[in-house]
Amino acid sequence: MIFLEYRILNEIKSPEQLKNMSNEELTALCEEIRACIINTVSLNGGHLASNLGAVELTVALHRVFNAPTDALLFDVGHQSYAHKLLTGRFECFSTLRKEGGLSGFMNPKESDYDPFVSGHSSNSVSFAYGIYKAKAILGQQGTAVAIIGDGAMTGGMVFEAINNIGADKAKFLLVLNDNEMSISQNVGSLARHLNKIRSKSGYHTFKGKLTRFLNKIPLIGKGIYKLLFRSKKVLKNAIYHSNVFEGLGLNYFGPVDGHDLKAVENILTIAKNQDRPAIVHVVTVKGKGYGYAEKDPDIYHGVSPFNKESGIIPCERLDYSFIAGQALCEMAAKDSKICAITAAMTSGTGLNRFATEFSDRFFDVGIAEEHAMTFSAGLAKGGMKPYFAVYSSFLQRSYDQIIHDVAIEGLPVHILVDRAGLVGEDGKTHHGLFDLSFLSGVPGMTIYSPASFVELSKTVTDTADSTVPVAIRYPRGAEGKIGVFPYTGKEFDTFFEGSGTAVVTFGRLSYFAYEAAETCSATFVKLNKVYPFSNKLLDYLLTFKKVCIFEEGIRAGGIGEKLIACLSHREYKGELTLNAVNNEFVEGASVSAQLSLNKLDKKAMIGVIS
Amino acid sequence: MIFLEYRILNEIKSPEQLKNMSNEELTALCEEIRACIINTVSLNGGHLASNLGAVELTVALHRVFNAPTDALLFDVGHQSYAHKLLTGRFECFSTLRKEGGLSGFMNPKESDYDPFVSGHSSNSVSFAYGIYKAKAILGQQGTAVAIIGDGAMTGGMVFEAINNIGADKAKFLLVLNDNEMSISQNVGSLARHLNKIRSKSGYHTFKGKLTRFLNKIPLIGKGIYKLLFRSKKVLKNAIYHSNVFEGLGLNYFGPVDGHDLKAVENILTIAKNQDRPAIVHVVTVKGKGYGYAEKDPDIYHGVSPFNKESGIIPCERLDYSFIAGQALCEMAAKDSKICAITAAMTSGTGLNRFATEFSDRFFDVGIAEEHAMTFSAGLAKGGMKPYFAVYSSFLQRSYDQIIHDVAIEGLPVHILVDRAGLVGEDGKTHHGLFDLSFLSGVPGMTIYSPASFVELSKTVTDTADSTVPVAIRYPRGAEGKIGVFPYTGKEFDTFFEGSGTAVVTFGRLSYFAYEAAETCSATFVKLNKVYPFSNKLLDYLLTFKKVCIFEEGIRAGGIGEKLIACLSHREYKGELTLNAVNNEFVEGASVSAQLSLNKLDKKAMIGVIS
Repeated sequence: MIFLEYRILNEIKSPEQLKNMSNEELTALCEEIRACIINTVSLNGGHLASNLGAVELTVALHRVFNAPTDALLFDVGHQSYAHKLLTGRFECFSTLRKEGGLSGFMNPKESDYDPFVSGHSSNSVSFAYGIYKAKAILGQQGTAVAIIGDGAMTGGMVFEAINNIGADKAKFLLVLNDNEMSISQNVGSLARHLNKIRSKSGYHTFKGKLTRFLNKIPLIGKGIYKLLFRSKKVLKNAIYHSNVFEGLGLNYFGPVDGHDLKAVENILTIAKNQDRPAIVHVVTVKGKGYGYAEKDPDIYHGVSPFNKESGIIPCERLDYSFIAGQALCEMAAKDSKICAITAAMTSGTGLNRFATEFSDRFFDVGIAEEHAMTFSAGLAKGGMKPYFAVYSSFLQRSYDQIIHDVAIEGLPVHILVDRAGLVGEDGKTHHGLFDLSFLSGVPGMTIYSPASFVELSKTVTDTADSTVPVAIRYPRGAEGKIGVFPYTGKEFDTFFEGSGTAVVTFGRLSYFAYEAAETCSATFVKLNKVYPFSNKLLDYLLTFKKVCIFEEGIRAGGIGEKLIACLSHREYKGELTLNAVNNEFVEGASVSAQLSLNKLDKKAMIGVIS
Repeated sequence: MIFLEYRILNEIKSPEQLKNMSNEELTALCEEIRACIINTVSLNGGHLASNLGAVELTVALHRVFNAPTDALLFDVGHQSYAHKLLTGRFECFSTLRKEGGLSGFMNPKESDYDPFVSGHSSNSVSFAYGIYKAKAILGQQGTAVAIIGDGAMTGGMVFEAINNIGADKAKFLLVLNDNEMSISQNVGSLARHLNKIRSKSGYHTFKGKLTRFLNKIPLIGKGIYKLLFRSKKVLKNAIYHSNVFEGLGLNYFGPVDGHDLKAVENILTIAKNQDRPAIVHVVTVKGKGYGYAEKDPDIYHGVSPFNKESGIIPCERLDYSFIAGQALCEMAAKDSKICAITAAMTSGTGLNRFATEFSDRFFDVGIAEEHAMTFSAGLAKGGMKPYFAVYSSFLQRSYDQIIHDVAIEGLPVHILVDRAGLVGEDGKTHHGLFDLSFLSGVPGMTIYSPASFVELSKTVTDTADSTVPVAIRYPRGAEGKIGVFPYTGKEFDTFFEGSGTAVVTFGRLSYFAYEAAETCSATFVKLNKVYPFSNKLLDYLLTFKKVCIFEEGIRAGGIGEKLIACLSHREYKGELTLNAVNNEFVEGASVSAQLSLNKLDKKAMIGVIS
């Protein structure tokens, strides 16, 4: 299949070919890559602005290094589209984020050019260093390069990795793709530090001049000459180790304009040949080459399909995130103790309005889920009512902090677990399938799973004065049929009582269960508080001959297994079934396809019940 | 009760009293504190060297700040003994680490002077900042100060916190207690950076001189003067932001001799009154005042009871950690792909010999469990056979990395889960009660639980060529009766077959179960591979009328609940019982007392079986 509009991309079978291209061809190639990304993302949705910013950088990397012998690790992976296009995936690029198609992130199962699984931020440096050391020990060819955004740099594990690497004499290279953004505006003092470095071009010129001067200085023995001479070493040290990376043992190169292909190539070549670990600081423009995205990189970071001519992105329907954010705002207006915390997901978790209206009680801590959780614990200890809104998948990063900093003392931290359950096209790195399992294992944690907007809103409000840790989980997207599930405030609601079969579920699956139970003349037991179980719930379920549990979460250690164990402890002798995600990672597809595949839709329910 | 030898300590009812003491009294007080710590730890065991190093610093903190209005948060807490002695806990200090006695760490249940739970490293800054912000928002008096060791500084969440704090205009203070050690020799580039700062006393004097000079410099218009003038700002910036902390937005003060009480007080007072977040760098000597500990701070970091006159610590019995380390060494001698990773626990996880003999394949990454796990994944991807040895409790920090970086791609990382189960006196922050629950929820993870040294050794060896992730868990301390459990290589072993009751357990509890089953004429089914369950195991268990499960781990989501769910799925209709830790945190005591309390000893087993 030949794409006429992509003259050069059509010819690229291997990134090796890039090495023989002329400047003109390379310029044209970058244009084609941009066009292809814009076209595809406008049709399929995906990450736009970050990928457009990394085009020249990616081409330069493939010219300077030899992938896959040299492993290129793009952190998070939402800057890896150009890499995919250059490494044999141009022809199938139209399948991006579709069922059975290309992943939106790096995926070793997809290509040998993808050395690691990406999706969660800030892991590339650690992983790349592992590959690098393995090659060194085994005497294999090649190296490993981590390419990481300035946003991902705020994740603590990058610092842990740099601390480890900076003490090594390794020829290891780290590329900082600095677009002055994480997903939205980058926060924190590192971002400010990067800004300082970027703006100190004079300083960098000066650095060279002063060094040459210091190297020539004679011993004169008086005044400033004496002072300078005595302190030559000290001064050189101070100046050379004048940014955080140098302080941590990396050789620093940059900043360089990330859209000047030759300049990027040159600096990568120099850095590659150092005998010490090095960092190359590349400054890029998020959304580069697509006016709408350059202007509003935040809006075009991750998008659903849009009109590429007008730049118009269809309005999203109201979603759970928005509802949670609204509920917090209403509470905050009345109660000065309410505060909200996010780890670089202000917009994603529906906190835009809160951030504006209650800026003194709003904390975007950067991509830093460990800190976010313990900081929330401190806020709770200090008498505030903190709500940490976070995607389920990223909450995994806070697991130890939940146990050690929140639960041991039983502090009333509220965790708003967004994107719980299956998330669709983002695929296996982003599902919220583990939170039920790991949160229910934390002593003293209470977990709610509202099934409608009104339930979410009321649950957020009604738990405000909780004296213990609370997690409220809800899926990505919109509620189902409106009005089916009003808020009752009960631990569980029942529908169609009087049958011998109970259908037990919660959250999004409730809509299917309601209809399936109605169809099969079964009773639907809808959990609102999903864990721990009350005796009332267990007593009630013991009255059924058959209990069919459905869970949008991993089977092992989930709510279903726990419920079965509790019923068994009560010597339940009826029939028990459990449909859940069968302890495997779920590939990207639409949510409805994923639910169907995992036997969690209405049809599967009817099959089990009857 | 009056302790005659502690004249001053006897009189201290509140840290407020310190503020009116003379220099002589303060010096004598520090001596008494040291004596009391040495006496108590020599009897009870505990953390010695780190606490001895923090005596003057703690006294200074209580003189400069007003606890508990000002919250003092000692990171990890193994530097908090002096704090305990000065805040109303002198009289009961002899109960340190005993059942019902004082915790060895900070514990809010114990005293209002302990604002947070400590035990796991690197959380104090985040927590303190939370308390600080809560006070600021609520208009309450006081501040919060985090006191953190240089070892704990290698944990990524400290960096996350500093990134957050450094961008604030907050009057927030961080104290770095730098003893040039974490638990053993500190590693990484930050340690090297600290060393540079410490050794640059000339630089610090120079810094002042140069600034005064630069402030006076006239415009002369030629040569060096011109150069210097033009770059005055640049140079000042470079020099003032010349260490990592300054780069990250903290005002840096130090280094100061941490045993010069007046000097520490002065610098704390200055830093306290800054309008920006600040860090005070205090240099201390680990083990200060006790010769043996000063000489070998590593050995005297955490000790069992010892002879304080001779400094002799009784030889530890052979333990599981040692056996695991030996097994790795034997493999490494034959297979150049074997490598070992630790997060600042070389000695604790039995890797001393490996570190010496295979230094090129040994990686101590600092207190950095997130990085350690993903680095291990990279090593596995690169073709090595990495074994990450880590305490179960600290492994919680790697939860997301296990899922995202190891399990999605199914990389053969070996996790040696040391200190699994109850750990005794270290108490609720240190038990390894969650690993069974969270590891068994990770798709594709295989978990082994050897019950004897030979089983551990062989399991470590026999899984070397695994192509999937493996976790091998074992308790603190020594094996039980020797020879009872030889290595069979089977997924489970059976003893006393032919009865209608099965006792199912694994690991350390196997010794009790063996005897209890023998006593009660029951069959003992000893799991070697604890998860996932084989059909063979399930088929076998279905043949029993009664299955009694015992698990040294948290009940919710553990192996027991999972086994019950699987048996239920197979329509098992017999009697099922499960004894496990009942979803609560277990206080410090001896392991045998803890097992007994949780109904996991032989007596409890006999009660359940018969």
